[in-house]
Amino acid sequence: MEDRQSASKIVVTGQWPEYAEAHLGFRNYWYPAMASSSLGKRPQAVKLLGEDVVLVRDNGRAYALNDRCPHRGVPLSMGRRQFPGTISCAYHGWTYDLKDGNLVAALTDGPDSPICGKRSVRIAAYPVEERAGLIWVYIGDAPAPPIEEDVPEELLKAGTVPMVMVETRKGNWRYGMENAVDEAHAKYLHRRTPFYFFSKFPVYSTDVRMEVAEDGKWLVRTGKQVFDSQTYGELGSWPGREWWRVGGGVSTFAARLPAIFRISHKTWSDYQFFVPVDEHHHLAVMVSAKWPSRLGKAWWKLYYHAYVRPFHHIMLNRWEDDRMVSMMSIPPEKLFRPDISVTTWRKWSSETARRTPEAPATSKP
Amino acid sequence: MEDRQSASKIVVTGQWPEYAEAHLGFRNYWYPAMASSSLGKRPQAVKLLGEDVVLVRDNGRAYALNDRCPHRGVPLSMGRRQFPGTISCAYHGWTYDLKDGNLVAALTDGPDSPICGKRSVRIAAYPVEERAGLIWVYIGDAPAPPIEEDVPEELLKAGTVPMVMVETRKGNWRYGMENAVDEAHAKYLHRRTPFYFFSKFPVYSTDVRMEVAEDGKWLVRTGKQVFDSQTYGELGSWPGREWWRVGGGVSTFAARLPAIFRISHKTWSDYQFFVPVDEHHHLAVMVSAKWPSRLGKAWWKLYYHAYVRPFHHIMLNRWEDDRMVSMMSIPPEKLFRPDISVTTWRKWSSETARRTPEAPATSKP
Amino acid sequence: MEDRQSASKIVVTGQWPEYAEAHLGFRNYWYPAMASSSLGKRPQAVKLLGEDVVLVRDNGRAYALNDRCPHRGVPLSMGRRQFPGTISCAYHGWTYDLKDGNLVAALTDGPDSPICGKRSVRIAAYPVEERAGLIWVYIGDAPAPPIEEDVPEELLKAGTVPMVMVETRKGNWRYGMENAVDEAHAKYLHRRTPFYFFSKFPVYSTDVRMEVAEDGKWLVRTGKQVFDSQTYGELGSWPGREWWRVGGGVSTFAARLPAIFRISHKTWSDYQFFVPVDEHHHLAVMVSAKWPSRLGKAWWKLYYHAYVRPFHHIMLNRWEDDRMVSMMSIPPEKLFRPDISVTTWRKWSSETARRTPEAPATSKP
Repeated sequence: MEDRQSASKIVVTGQWPEYAEAHLGFRNYWYPAMASSSLGKRPQAVKLLGEDVVLVRDNGRAYALNDRCPHRGVPLSMGRRQFPGTISCAYHGWTYDLKDGNLVAALTDGPDSPICGKRSVRIAAYPVEERAGLIWVYIGDAPAPPIEEDVPEELLKAGTVPMVMVETRKGNWRYGMENAVDEAHAKYLHRRTPFYFFSKFPVYSTDVRMEVAEDGKWLVRTGKQVFDSQTYGELGSWPGREWWRVGGGVSTFAARLPAIFRISHKTWSDYQFFVPVDEHHHLAVMVSAKWPSRLGKAWWKLYYHAYVRPFHHIMLNRWEDDRMVSMMSIPPEKLFRPDISVTTWRKWSSETARRTPEAPATSKP
Repeated sequence: MEDRQSASKIVVTGQWPEYAEAHLGFRNYWYPAMASSSLGKRPQAVKLLGEDVVLVRDNGRAYALNDRCPHRGVPLSMGRRQFPGTISCAYHGWTYDLKDGNLVAALTDGPDSPICGKRSVRIAAYPVEERAGLIWVYIGDAPAPPIEEDVPEELLKAGTVPMVMVETRKGNWRYGMENAVDEAHAKYLHRRTPFYFFSKFPVYSTDVRMEVAEDGKWLVRTGKQVFDSQTYGELGSWPGREWWRVGGGVSTFAARLPAIFRISHKTWSDYQFFVPVDEHHHLAVMVSAKWPSRLGKAWWKLYYHAYVRPFHHIMLNRWEDDRMVSMMSIPPEKLFRPDISVTTWRKWSSETARRTPEAPATSKP
Repeated sequence: MEDRQSASKIVVTGQWPEYAEAHLGFRNYWYPAMASSSLGKRPQAVKLLGEDVVLVRDNGRAYALNDRCPHRGVPLSMGRRQFPGTISCAYHGWTYDLKDGNLVAALTDGPDSPICGKRSVRIAAYPVEERAGLIWVYIGDAPAPPIEEDVPEELLKAGTVPMVMVETRKGNWRYGMENAVDEAHAKYLHRRTPFYFFSKFPVYSTDVRMEVAEDGKWLVRTGKQVFDSQTYGELGSWPGREWWRVGGGVSTFAARLPAIFRISHKTWSDYQFFVPVDEHHHLAVMVSAKWPSRLGKAWWKLYYHAYVRPFHHIMLNRWEDDRMVSMMSIPPEKLFRPDISVTTWRKWSSETARRTPEAPATSKP
């Protein structure tokens, strides 16, 4: 008990300016932007960390450019695919190379248009990669590290079968991420959720900690769970005897920069990415991954579509979690002991997030 | 005529700062918040004078708390009724005593949670009473006076049968209240309204006054009504001969702080409360009250539902009055003689409204 | 080619403050406000150059007043037509002379109301004329010039059969007007539009110019059109061979202050007025005019309704042009050679637009 009291002290000390100012997220990371299966030849607009991005697939490869034609400010995502390897603005046919954003033709000014190739009309091109069923875009000011630095290693393993769901949700990305990291809320908010209805479900935890894993990348949540119904003074007892809970299952929870949360189940893992969109919205990218045998693959897909997606990602995450996240209004806030999970995440991410170099070259990669 | 001219002088003299600044209403009064019949065990959110309030009924009694859990800023009105006499935040099960807003349990931190009972997490509790079919909430900084100070005495009489209608309307509360107090508009705006269609209806009034009643609480409107059709120079005459108007009925009109208007009919009274919500909305609380015999009670209810509610509160108040109130755009304004009713109300309410004490203790009761 | 390069220099020189600041348009001009056929006895509200205007027809003539009763700020367009030649505010029956905006009666204050005729409650009356099937309103601070100064002369000719379409569109009026003036966009954006599908269609132009016409009122666009498919380096050729284009038709394009664009076809003319509404909307007033024989009149009307309106004004102007205009986001912008059309328009309109006199008398006519 001494232990818990001291934890509660950390909660109220210090503020972390990098985290506090990251309204649009931590820059200089690879972020998942959409499901690979959703991207075809047709341009798609997404907003990431406040930047408008147009994604497009060409000859099998994914590309990303800043979604604004510098001529008259029309979104390139309204444009056409006039020639292979390019995108043309719908308005005047300014045509950009998908690889580097260079203006390679201004169709309505003829082949000799002197504006072609000028640096002043070059569009920012974002580094793009595809891994684990997702399109990843690097948003930052420093040169991009290898994609393997930022995709959870488990998702890069051979035989991974990732099942993906992406949706825009209300609330700053930090509210979404903190809700995931938050140790205590599940015990009350999700107590009757169908996904866990038959599972043994803790009432509260003691000795909550977030500890850095060996690889230095994950912050793993630990604590001692209490499962018995408790008596709260004169109020009565809660949650009463829940005789119908027979299932078990020890899940572990971990967080990682820039905005990744992982729930490790016995045979599969659930990843949630809280990708910043603007100050009041985030993209919830949910990936359930398993490494099944050839026979198990069809079963896993069925299990995902019939159970994980509707019960966990829709009922639990959208209807319960995001209902809270979208109504949250902090600061001010008053924290209690289990919030050590939230404050440790804030402190650690604030201290270890990649920094933007002092004098950025041209602000876009 | 001398008389009217002088009235017109008052109109243009002076401004009343207390009134001018009361965008969110006069504090330190009891306000009706909803119909008693609408409040049950389930929490209800209302906004009063810019403050978010959650109302709830427990063991027959009504309670009101500030509608924000200080933990993570989620509205308590989304919460559950976990134990008698309390409300629990839906997010983490922080449980508050309805009587005083004290945190009596933080369910997901176990029974020994050290945060319980701390003053810093106590929620403001509002004084609540029920009278005349309404839930009354005291909003203010000074200690609440007895409810009887603020509920019109007539509504407190034994045998009162109040019929209640409540709806949120557009427009600052002062626009709504001034429209009620406004002497002249009825003669034009409501001239063809079904509610008064067969009643003798004045064309204009002279010697309009608002005079303080003996009890010092009501401002009663007086004036000499002119009923004959008038000739307006070369324009023609108005309103012409209205031979179908055969009904009579002398109604009297009176206003009272903080935002109450009363129309006294021969056998019943109509009360309208213009409760401030935010700068651009008010709650229109309409109470029609009669003191019928046992036999007359059913007839009164029928009369209200078949006539008063649809013809007065919906057609006349909502479709005619509030159509104007929601489009009003003042200042600037240019007033004419009958507006002495409005300016007297402004001056009197500005001068006599309860003041907030100089150094409020903690800003909430 | 020398020629074109020099044109491109003009593009990037200088900024024109009058144009840059005309967010709500150029004042001191006659603007078309609605179709004559749409205006009857019933008051109609329009917003022109940021000013609220109520239009009404009385005894065959159109009138326009500022759409705000100075009493309590309610729009006069909600009012009634109580007496000939007047409009009465719906709220208290303040009655205004349509000719000059004088308060001629305050019905609910009786015939002797001293406020009548006072200058302080007089409403601004706008000069109004009807020409070419449109209601024209003068918005300005200087005295209005004759309407003939501002209505294109062609539309004033005897035998004109004007066909009118009016709709509010998104985007500042300058975006709409610049899109019309813009030389290059049609070649790409409208390349497949049904209206021009079978017409020979240029690929680009050289030597683009906007030259002032003899009357000093019109800025006429010239240039040498190139019709052959072009090869754009390694990208490929565009637009390919368009064998189905057999129609011809030389149209000429011209712009005029305050916001008029004209397309002269062989036998008829298309006028587009980009009337400023507020900073983010404009009124697109489109008038197709022909001077047919008696027999040709019915055919012209059929041609307009079956072809010009659906294919040009709806598909081409609304679905293609305004889709771009509503998404445009400038400054910043980066211009190319054909934009000499846009910059010449900016410069010329900035330099020659009527000025508001230094010390305006009462700001409204």
